[in-house]
Amino acid sequence: MTRFASLDELRAACLDLPGGHPEAAAAVARREGALTKPPRSLGRLEEAVAWLSLWQGRSPPRLDQVEILVFAGNHGVTAQGVSAYPPEVTAQMVANFAAGGAAINQLAQIANAELRVIALDLDHPTADFTAGAAMDEAEFLDAVSSGYHALSPEADLVVLGEMGIGNTTAASAVSAALFGGGGARFAGHGTGLDDKGLKRKQKVIDAALVRHGAILGDPLRVAAALGGRELAAILGAALAARHQRIPTLLDGFVCTAAVAPLAKLRADALDHALAGHRSAEAGHRLLLEALGLPPLLDLGMRLGEGSGAAVAVLVLRAALACHTGMATFAEAHVSGKDA
Amino acid sequence: MTRFASLDELRAACLDLPGGHPEAAAAVARREGALTKPPRSLGRLEEAVAWLSLWQGRSPPRLDQVEILVFAGNHGVTAQGVSAYPPEVTAQMVANFAAGGAAINQLAQIANAELRVIALDLDHPTADFTAGAAMDEAEFLDAVSSGYHALSPEADLVVLGEMGIGNTTAASAVSAALFGGGGARFAGHGTGLDDKGLKRKQKVIDAALVRHGAILGDPLRVAAALGGRELAAILGAALAARHQRIPTLLDGFVCTAAVAPLAKLRADALDHALAGHRSAEAGHRLLLEALGLPPLLDLGMRLGEGSGAAVAVLVLRAALACHTGMATFAEAHVSGKDA
Repeated sequence: MTRFASLDELRAACLDLPGGHPEAAAAVARREGALTKPPRSLGRLEEAVAWLSLWQGRSPPRLDQVEILVFAGNHGVTAQGVSAYPPEVTAQMVANFAAGGAAINQLAQIANAELRVIALDLDHPTADFTAGAAMDEAEFLDAVSSGYHALSPEADLVVLGEMGIGNTTAASAVSAALFGGGGARFAGHGTGLDDKGLKRKQKVIDAALVRHGAILGDPLRVAAALGGRELAAILGAALAARHQRIPTLLDGFVCTAAVAPLAKLRADALDHALAGHRSAEAGHRLLLEALGLPPLLDLGMRLGEGSGAAVAVLVLRAALACHTGMATFAEAHVSGKDA
Repeated sequence: MTRFASLDELRAACLDLPGGHPEAAAAVARREGALTKPPRSLGRLEEAVAWLSLWQGRSPPRLDQVEILVFAGNHGVTAQGVSAYPPEVTAQMVANFAAGGAAINQLAQIANAELRVIALDLDHPTADFTAGAAMDEAEFLDAVSSGYHALSPEADLVVLGEMGIGNTTAASAVSAALFGGGGARFAGHGTGLDDKGLKRKQKVIDAALVRHGAILGDPLRVAAALGGRELAAILGAALAARHQRIPTLLDGFVCTAAVAPLAKLRADALDHALAGHRSAEAGHRLLLEALGLPPLLDLGMRLGEGSGAAVAVLVLRAALACHTGMATFAEAHVSGKDA
């Protein structure tokens, strides 16, 4: 398959998901129990190693090839004055990624990850969704398919991120459409909107929810009507990762909103995904709670670009180093519990 | 000075503390504001760089020499059955550190930090503090002085950690003595105590608080009577770091309890210290709140050894990489906010 041909074909692909490799996770758990530490005393580090193993089907898991995919898109809804930055910043930041000057470049390097940036038709912003659907079906399927095919099948871990001026408005609209509560519940200050701008953003979202009321029960149509190309591509990449059983780290609010339709279609669709961090963007906490995704980190970051998830890669590397490098009680001649 | 000669001399040293270098932190803040990201969008990463700079007096700060100091001690109170592991595990784990088999060895390596383990008279446990003071004044000052002199003056960052079977009981007793609430408030399951053991631990702490009631108003006497050698050494190392203005990362519950007497003596005594993480050990949350130290990480870790703080070093390295490596808006030709 080179492109999803219809929403029905995509929906079928979203419902046809493989499970993990419990035998690999069980082997990891056995080794964890023998290492020189009280049981479960490394907390989420131990859980993360088991999770990597569950999806990679390897014990121990590995992090030799970590891939950060950053998708960029432009949004017609910026015409409504919902962002503190002008829309040309999306392309300028893509150039900054190429030149190595952005936060994600430094974080990819320190996390020993390969960064790939995929700009999606930046010269043609999506339509303003207060006036109609952001994307028609063909545009949406093109973007999803771009994301689906962006992933390297050999990746040990994929990190998903985004760039797109106006995309916290799209993410808030998608979240409110899927989980209710309107603009007041999910909209935040984004890149630094003032209070007046935030009220405008909430109204824009509420207007869009009214306009698109007829399709709110269909998660994929919600993604097409209220999302954006980079959100659609992230949905596609997360779906590809699941089909290939590649563990996936989500970044912040926009990235999480992008994959939320998958969880609405099938409750266990994000079992292969871990929330790398909780963003300072207000809606992210609600969204993570709604999806049952406890974040690894909570550092008050709200940049996007995959930046929070890239920092979380460091935690995964620390977890794996402990799992593979530590001695067992027997090897180290250390007495066990209640000995 | 090679050794604190009296509690009065130590107390005077605890009250005579230098401040940071606000001009270096201001230079960091100016650069942060020019980098290609919305203001403050890297959250605690930006704060951490400013903090490193404030204490190092350098803009940008550096993390070329990161030193992890792990102090180990034995505790007479283990005779009361307060730990799930036998006391000989302290020395066995020190041997495991030397052989490179513990969690902290793997984490020090991945954090590119130098690990130094200082075992404090393990063959002579402190006295059982339900019967008398854990340490007399001379023993306490010896341990504090060991920690004070363990630090390399050239360190860019020091990470403090500990190992000592029974030391969460000491930490709980010190915390309850300083902040009130008794054993029920601060005691937790430690390395894996069962519920019956936890009740015993709480009773042991309450008995000690009664026995040492006369000295509870004096933070240094509390540290001597209810603490342990590794806690005293951590107090000494944190004090030395402050005198030398070296930024300091604290590990978990025991490490935080060890330095709490400093904050009781002078409210700003821990301004050069950052809590690397919040431990799963119940008392740590309360203690961090009492001290006004918001942790960088919250990963459900409860191992000690400096392990949580060592993971936090990775976050500091990520923060520094962004600060030093990112392009400015002008360099990258990116439009600014509300442009």
